[in-house]
Amino acid sequence: MQKVTSSQTIRRARARLGLQPVAPINEDEQIAERHRLWWSRVRVALREPLAEFLGMVIMVLLGSSSSAQVLLSKGQQTAPGGNGYGPYQNINWGWGIGTMLGLYVAGDSGAYLNPAVTLANCIFRQLPWRRFPTYAMAQFLGALVGTGIVYANYINAIDQYEGYRIRTVPPNPTATASIFCTFPQPFLTKASQFVSEFIASAILVIVVFAFRDPRNNGIEKFPLMMFFLWFGLGAGFGWNTGYSLNPARDLGARVMATLLGYGSEIWTAGDYYFIIQETAPFCGCVFGGLLYDLFIYTGISPVNTPWMGLKHILRPDYAFGVAKARRYKDVEEGDT
Amino acid sequence: MQKVTSSQTIRRARARLGLQPVAPINEDEQIAERHRLWWSRVRVALREPLAEFLGMVIMVLLGSSSSAQVLLSKGQQTAPGGNGYGPYQNINWGWGIGTMLGLYVAGDSGAYLNPAVTLANCIFRQLPWRRFPTYAMAQFLGALVGTGIVYANYINAIDQYEGYRIRTVPPNPTATASIFCTFPQPFLTKASQFVSEFIASAILVIVVFAFRDPRNNGIEKFPLMMFFLWFGLGAGFGWNTGYSLNPARDLGARVMATLLGYGSEIWTAGDYYFIIQETAPFCGCVFGGLLYDLFIYTGISPVNTPWMGLKHILRPDYAFGVAKARRYKDVEEGDT
Amino acid sequence: MQKVTSSQTIRRARARLGLQPVAPINEDEQIAERHRLWWSRVRVALREPLAEFLGMVIMVLLGSSSSAQVLLSKGQQTAPGGNGYGPYQNINWGWGIGTMLGLYVAGDSGAYLNPAVTLANCIFRQLPWRRFPTYAMAQFLGALVGTGIVYANYINAIDQYEGYRIRTVPPNPTATASIFCTFPQPFLTKASQFVSEFIASAILVIVVFAFRDPRNNGIEKFPLMMFFLWFGLGAGFGWNTGYSLNPARDLGARVMATLLGYGSEIWTAGDYYFIIQETAPFCGCVFGGLLYDLFIYTGISPVNTPWMGLKHILRPDYAFGVAKARRYKDVEEGDT
Amino acid sequence: MQKVTSSQTIRRARARLGLQPVAPINEDEQIAERHRLWWSRVRVALREPLAEFLGMVIMVLLGSSSSAQVLLSKGQQTAPGGNGYGPYQNINWGWGIGTMLGLYVAGDSGAYLNPAVTLANCIFRQLPWRRFPTYAMAQFLGALVGTGIVYANYINAIDQYEGYRIRTVPPNPTATASIFCTFPQPFLTKASQFVSEFIASAILVIVVFAFRDPRNNGIEKFPLMMFFLWFGLGAGFGWNTGYSLNPARDLGARVMATLLGYGSEIWTAGDYYFIIQETAPFCGCVFGGLLYDLFIYTGISPVNTPWMGLKHILRPDYAFGVAKARRYKDVEEGDT
Repeated sequence: MQKVTSSQTIRRARARLGLQPVAPINEDEQIAERHRLWWSRVRVALREPLAEFLGMVIMVLLGSSSSAQVLLSKGQQTAPGGNGYGPYQNINWGWGIGTMLGLYVAGDSGAYLNPAVTLANCIFRQLPWRRFPTYAMAQFLGALVGTGIVYANYINAIDQYEGYRIRTVPPNPTATASIFCTFPQPFLTKASQFVSEFIASAILVIVVFAFRDPRNNGIEKFPLMMFFLWFGLGAGFGWNTGYSLNPARDLGARVMATLLGYGSEIWTAGDYYFIIQETAPFCGCVFGGLLYDLFIYTGISPVNTPWMGLKHILRPDYAFGVAKARRYKDVEEGDT
Repeated sequence: MQKVTSSQTIRRARARLGLQPVAPINEDEQIAERHRLWWSRVRVALREPLAEFLGMVIMVLLGSSSSAQVLLSKGQQTAPGGNGYGPYQNINWGWGIGTMLGLYVAGDSGAYLNPAVTLANCIFRQLPWRRFPTYAMAQFLGALVGTGIVYANYINAIDQYEGYRIRTVPPNPTATASIFCTFPQPFLTKASQFVSEFIASAILVIVVFAFRDPRNNGIEKFPLMMFFLWFGLGAGFGWNTGYSLNPARDLGARVMATLLGYGSEIWTAGDYYFIIQETAPFCGCVFGGLLYDLFIYTGISPVNTPWMGLKHILRPDYAFGVAKARRYKDVEEGDT
Repeated sequence: MQKVTSSQTIRRARARLGLQPVAPINEDEQIAERHRLWWSRVRVALREPLAEFLGMVIMVLLGSSSSAQVLLSKGQQTAPGGNGYGPYQNINWGWGIGTMLGLYVAGDSGAYLNPAVTLANCIFRQLPWRRFPTYAMAQFLGALVGTGIVYANYINAIDQYEGYRIRTVPPNPTATASIFCTFPQPFLTKASQFVSEFIASAILVIVVFAFRDPRNNGIEKFPLMMFFLWFGLGAGFGWNTGYSLNPARDLGARVMATLLGYGSEIWTAGDYYFIIQETAPFCGCVFGGLLYDLFIYTGISPVNTPWMGLKHILRPDYAFGVAKARRYKDVEEGDT
Repeated sequence: MQKVTSSQTIRRARARLGLQPVAPINEDEQIAERHRLWWSRVRVALREPLAEFLGMVIMVLLGSSSSAQVLLSKGQQTAPGGNGYGPYQNINWGWGIGTMLGLYVAGDSGAYLNPAVTLANCIFRQLPWRRFPTYAMAQFLGALVGTGIVYANYINAIDQYEGYRIRTVPPNPTATASIFCTFPQPFLTKASQFVSEFIASAILVIVVFAFRDPRNNGIEKFPLMMFFLWFGLGAGFGWNTGYSLNPARDLGARVMATLLGYGSEIWTAGDYYFIIQETAPFCGCVFGGLLYDLFIYTGISPVNTPWMGLKHILRPDYAFGVAKARRYKDVEEGDT
């Protein structure tokens, strides 16, 4: 990959966002000369966040739309086949395909459309910590925008299903909020809510790390495999808590739903379930990464350092020193 | 790819159809000598349109047949499993697989069995404009013929379902016209009809452009991925308006249905819904292409020219000049 | 591929079966020395028929078992989910996966587990005609044995479903013969029965030829694509006539069903439907091959000879001469 | 693959477990120096068993969870689509994807998460016999732990479904034991129970051997194909006996279920069905391997030795001698 000699301005803008000073774009000379154009310069500066944003929009569009279609067309007699436009499995297809295609659009920035996976990559795979807030913000905005578009597309159908301008949240029987974000089954204890999301998140990162491990069946067709992974998670972890496993998707959807008039119940439902959504995936993904590295990984990872990586956790000064050294190295490499 | 030294006649015939003077066929000498045969010469002259035509027939055959099977066998007790030959999802499979296999048959001409995608490729990816009418005509004829074959295959079943020689259009409860072309849900406003097709078309082109972008996860297995894309669109955008997203397929099917006796309601149903079908996919595909190029694409595209591509739209003379220059270049390259 | 220097006996045995004198096995020396073993010699002599046989058994085992499971477990309340072990779509999965895995086991002999496809390959792709009977016999025996194993596996369930030792044929409401072979819907005319199988068979060969055409998107993952093709055929052509499209599978299953006590109705049902099964796939596959070669194929094919291949049909003496010349060439190449 | 120069201790530990003295890890020097760390040394010593264990946990987690979701959410009205969270097919998806992802995590140790397949590889593919107990133990423990986690995740739902602290086994109508291990249909005779598992296991090994045969369509994308294989087995062999086909998964699940309070019926149900589960897969897998090697395989296999491999069975002293010679060879190669 031949790197672009960007201007000093772009480099500084990228560095401020926590990105490598030079964008990972494979350019030929003909393209490089277009860098004098205003928008091309912005796009180079925001390369990875723009990709994460658009990928997230695609993912949420396909995923939430499939939820909307299943929920709102339930039992419709005039459907081909006579029983609505798709069963529960339709949602597995929608989110599986949405994630796969979102990843094809977003490319391979190490963020994977999910701040919890991004975090696991920061901790275990040397993704620079400075990028975390930029990626998470792009993911959040993508979920926000995607949710808004899905709502706009289904506004007539929601009006017909719930009644004109009525918008409710489960356990209301005609609630439509579960199109946009997830709610737990009523019989679950708080601990079980957490456990369900935690286990599924751990599986997510174990499998992602296996896909990305060149020493262990590392593969090329990563996004296709993500379709199967998400379908499988929907088949086994979709009932209890809805397998969002994605704090950015959840937060973006809840904020947008609030703006669209679903009221404060969107936050209080399921006994403030959104708190689980903003914590369990992070914990689960980190635990999954830890497990994979303990059991399988022989590459560079904090687990393969003294005290099995616990030195990073128990002695923050040590972790800080390692991270600092790594950052200087990144900057140097980028600038040479 | 070793190019055939076609005779002057073939070149002129191809140029008149808007095609490159030399057909993109990889030949060895043994085959080249067969060019004296009459049919081989015709086939070389019509290479891409013939491929688009046959691919379109395959796509419509598999897609519309799946719609027919689901609709007409609804609730049949003697089916294995006791409830008809497939639910709504069957249609997602049918159109997804039909598109995939049609693309394998049609090859990679840049037209992708869809005039709206062809248009986006003309605008953003330097597909010569002169080819658009030829491709669109081949696609239309393919849809026409494919629809006719599906009708012939299901004529007994339609007679049984609707009554002998009775052919109706939704919202008639036993209508069978929706086997061949799509109709919107009754609760949709005109604007929502447009929006639903527009969004889905935009997703279509964003993903196609991502698949075809060598700078961003560009991939080889394009047709397989198109299966997943269409399945996902069916899962999320199949209810509102039926996700045709293809003006040629829609027009071909409506013309054939008129010839087969479905009457003028095929055009007036859904408040002249066919107009949406002939406009929204074009708008959506172009918008999707614009979005992808704005957010991600760094290759040659009008978006990466002065004024962010708007110069092409706001100043037609400029666009005309660029296109003209490009055409001369094509002709020259073809003739050398 | 280094070819084995087989003994004179093996060569003669293979030639008598219509096979190339030298089996297409990639051997190293260590293996070659095992050729003195009796069974190794038999296996070399019968290489392709044995592979077709085992592949056919696998295909029928997985396919017919899925039909059996759907039919016999219909509506069972104690099933997980409460409604039997799979809907109609289950059969699409079973036959699609069965065909794919059967092809992986059988390898690439040009016969593709189907005498109708074998025939199309003989006519259009220079597969030696002498091999046709050997392949067809192996396929027939594979279907016979596979059907027998499926029956043995489901004998308790059939006894429970139909009654002890009662075995009937559609349209009897508790008929189980449709597990093993296909029967048409009662509303179909004789012509429509033929048409449905004909169209589906034509699609089958068009797509197979496209997959195998190196000039047009020829691909490596052939068996995986066959899964999608069969799934699509099941989605669109499964209702009318059951999409067997395979004279060997049908004949093998009917002969075995007769032996197992289903009576002569297995042959007379659907107004002697088995005659359609033994003719329409051959006609459809040949027509599909003709269509593909007319529209797309530029390689060696009778269509790309004088009179567009009709000389082969209208003047048998010419066709005989070409075939003879080809055979001598094969023998020579094999022996050198 | 550059091999690690492990210390003498690691070699001895590995040899005691039946593993090759040198672990099959592709290392660079930077990593090699980490071998002084305690855990890294343990991980090298237990390389393959750890991988089998974690892969088995992932497989059981996804598979059993999908069974749990289908069973426990049966008919739930508030589900999207109005009829529970997935039909029977959901279980095919869950186990298919679980096996695929488990294999990606476990890598290619020749054990394939199943002691019956491990056994077939020991007999027909020169996997050292000494490894069998280590692999089988790792697989058993993985199933045990995976089952426990699934139980923990669904404990609230099971309490709601069966009643608080009530745990029963089929044929009790609200039994939940079938989430974790399989039970036969009541109409099956003992012989049919065995036959059903035997046939499916034979198919399993025939297809796995075909995938792994470089002389016959050997392929790279092994785990993806395993998804299709398991889905197909679920479609055709899921009803009679539940297609576990895996003695380790079954034993691990039964032991854990006993610990969790399902009582001794977990062992006696289905007329001591667990005995079938612990024998039929072994017999079927070995028979499948024999069949594949008889019909297709021309590589190194006991079948391709004098007496068609029966010498190994009928004269144990001969088999012992061959195995011994092979073991010495392994050790030597490992040490050089």
